Amino acid sequence: MGDLIGRLRDGLPEDAVLTDPDVMRSYATDMASFCAAGAPGAVVLPRTVEQVQHVMRTATALRVPVVPQGARTGLSGAANALDGCIVLSLVKMDRIVEIDPVDRVAVVEPGVVNADLSRAVAEQGLYYPPDPSSWEQCTIGGNIGTASGGLCCVKYGVTAEYVLGLDVVLADGRLLKTGRRTAKGVAGYDLTRLFVGSEGSLGVIVRAVLALRPEPPQQLALAAEFPSVAAACEAVCRIMRRGHAPSLLELMDGTTVRAVNSMARMGLPESTEALLLAAFDTPDPGPDLAAVAELCREAGATEVVPAEDAAESDLLLQARRMSLPALETLRPATMIDDVCVPRSRLAEMLDGTAAVAERHGLTIGVCAHAGDGNTHPVVCFDPADPDEARRARESFDEIMALGLKLGGTITGEHGVGLLKKEWLAKELGPVALEMQRGIKQVFDPLGLLNPGKVLDA
Amino acid sequence: MGDLIGRLRDGLPEDAVLTDPDVMRSYATDMASFCAAGAPGAVVLPRTVEQVQHVMRTATALRVPVVPQGARTGLSGAANALDGCIVLSLVKMDRIVEIDPVDRVAVVEPGVVNADLSRAVAEQGLYYPPDPSSWEQCTIGGNIGTASGGLCCVKYGVTAEYVLGLDVVLADGRLLKTGRRTAKGVAGYDLTRLFVGSEGSLGVIVRAVLALRPEPPQQLALAAEFPSVAAACEAVCRIMRRGHAPSLLELMDGTTVRAVNSMARMGLPESTEALLLAAFDTPDPGPDLAAVAELCREAGATEVVPAEDAAESDLLLQARRMSLPALETLRPATMIDDVCVPRSRLAEMLDGTAAVAERHGLTIGVCAHAGDGNTHPVVCFDPADPDEARRARESFDEIMALGLKLGGTITGEHGVGLLKKEWLAKELGPVALEMQRGIKQVFDPLGLLNPGKVLDA
Repeated sequence: MGDLIGRLRDGLPEDAVLTDPDVMRSYATDMASFCAAGAPGAVVLPRTVEQVQHVMRTATALRVPVVPQGARTGLSGAANALDGCIVLSLVKMDRIVEIDPVDRVAVVEPGVVNADLSRAVAEQGLYYPPDPSSWEQCTIGGNIGTASGGLCCVKYGVTAEYVLGLDVVLADGRLLKTGRRTAKGVAGYDLTRLFVGSEGSLGVIVRAVLALRPEPPQQLALAAEFPSVAAACEAVCRIMRRGHAPSLLELMDGTTVRAVNSMARMGLPESTEALLLAAFDTPDPGPDLAAVAELCREAGATEVVPAEDAAESDLLLQARRMSLPALETLRPATMIDDVCVPRSRLAEMLDGTAAVAERHGLTIGVCAHAGDGNTHPVVCFDPADPDEARRARESFDEIMALGLKLGGTITGEHGVGLLKKEWLAKELGPVALEMQRGIKQVFDPLGLLNPGKVLDA
Repeated sequence: MGDLIGRLRDGLPEDAVLTDPDVMRSYATDMASFCAAGAPGAVVLPRTVEQVQHVMRTATALRVPVVPQGARTGLSGAANALDGCIVLSLVKMDRIVEIDPVDRVAVVEPGVVNADLSRAVAEQGLYYPPDPSSWEQCTIGGNIGTASGGLCCVKYGVTAEYVLGLDVVLADGRLLKTGRRTAKGVAGYDLTRLFVGSEGSLGVIVRAVLALRPEPPQQLALAAEFPSVAAACEAVCRIMRRGHAPSLLELMDGTTVRAVNSMARMGLPESTEALLLAAFDTPDPGPDLAAVAELCREAGATEVVPAEDAAESDLLLQARRMSLPALETLRPATMIDDVCVPRSRLAEMLDGTAAVAERHGLTIGVCAHAGDGNTHPVVCFDPADPDEARRARESFDEIMALGLKLGGTITGEHGVGLLKKEWLAKELGPVALEMQRGIKQVFDPLGLLNPGKVLDA
């Protein structure tokens, strides 16, 4: 270990190498529940590409595994430390290098916080859509590594859609440039997209060229109350079938609504079984909102309340963003699932989730990016009760099995990490798994980059 | 060869194996100029996935190279035959399996013609945006293989944005399923995107799940005349900087305008140096069109003519779509370049292209997807004149060199194929090239899939 620290220090500033065990422990985990984490051998916080290259060369020379990290807000354990590893935190590489309103691109370092970038581009009339719940903390590098989503996706897609090109330090320290800065480009295999969602297992992203959009008008929302989750899902189907393009289409089940009310007194309807939020950010959202209100009523909504203005719309969004923290107050611990199904199967997914909860005698609150069919069932339980903990884990797994049965995926936006490795193998099947392993081998032949994440070695 | 034909016939219907040399010759090339093509050993036209698997198993057993083909409208020689190869034409696998307006997906076989799909989804109020010039002939499989673009890209992006999942027959005949049918999904490395633009060199696409959008209103266009190409490019920059989202933003230089007029008597302004076409497909395009007209005037437009209605807008588009055939009438042959630069560098790119033409004493007409910075300089020449042919080739190369110098790419949407292999190496550099070769090796270890295309072995 002494050799490791010494060699790291040879190419890094004094304050960029942390070795205090307590400090290192604070870098050991992301926000996933119940994923194993080891004790790092060193934590490094480089500020330049050259320093990252030095770290990777050292790791390769000494055959030490490296765990790249952003703000550690991930939900799948992908950023968890391994025993003796180098934790490579990119948070100090946090410069916005360039924002270009004609080319509509931003060039950023990986440690830039999502919200900082969003605000910086907004000052120039531009919009960087990806907005994961943790947007005030999470970094762009982490967003790319985990292919983050958010509330915007139903209209604007996920992080992947906004990554045009990358600079990546490979396992052996060489610098790879992928992609482009142009609007279009098809020169060779798409390496850029391979890194999006690769959770630090193929290389270390040290710079990104991101696509931007013109800033849309502020969105205007409505809230619709339904007597059942299935009715709310039927409304979602009707809205999409009718060709609407909402900028937001979110669902909170009754459990979630009541949890949010009791945490924050939001005044949401206490007795509802499902609350659907829809918004439009077009210059004239009135006709769309009116049509969607009518479709909600046709699907069984008992009440439809349009927001008076953008401020009231923001309040509805805040309520939605509180879902997870609110559900976390219900029991000592939670496990958050992230199953995405074709939206036509959403009602089956959510009814099936309720059946799982009932069968196991557990509270499972659900919020969902309904327009995308992406559900977040939150399994609430007490880990101190071994039987309850076992039932929680079984529920978590049954929910993924149901998602696969309905033609869905085990992860819409949270990634695989440690949490869902076994399930990834089930989703992909042996041929795809073999190809995935082959790709890992191309970029990281020694298996030093975040080993044991995403795929087993 | 007898063994090859016999073994192919073992698993294919009688009419699915073509061996007549004249017939086979008609399958030997795509629409690229001046790319070498060999004489196929067999041409096969399977109708099922199992038949494609049989072809690939046979190819692997006998170590015979395979060239996958769609409608052979490609412009880079990627579909050109190799001596003794199996030409694997997918045009008979042409079923639209499913169109789902709630999930907004289409499931198709690779031989479906782009325009057939576009019309079929339109019947259900849906929109499949990618619209390459050859859309009435080209197939979805070919579009995916070459990552095709079109006129729609400035607002709707390229084919890659619409491919959610693929079924792929690997070189050894195994079936690989990639991606998803859901709106979101991050389960493992993105293999889907790796196949988009891989020009048949990684596997044979036998089914695709495509994302659809709601059909937008018909677009309304305007045409603006400029006294110089640079002034038109300045208008493009102002339009994008101001946050407009045109559904079309196309440029034709004076040479192209006059060629279109003389071929089709379109009544375009004869004396203009650059014609810019802009369109919007929003519910109320009036304010955007008025603002864009004003921006064009500020950038120096001498005349701005709004289309009266959708029909007149269509006429303008037709004129644009005629650019290439019209330029082809100017000299016995053409070479079409496909350089894409950041749109802020478009004026430099086009002025530089004019300088190349002048230096070599050649006619080079330019049409461009200006909003994307994607230019198509068409080098017009007589191949019977060796000196002129040499100057044409030099011009073609100098245009790519200029594109790279301006931070662009050698190919925005036409692909690499045989035509630009050497240039791909220049654009990517040695590290990226090594990674690309590694990926090829994972999927095609024997080098049987379209060998010598995209990358040298």
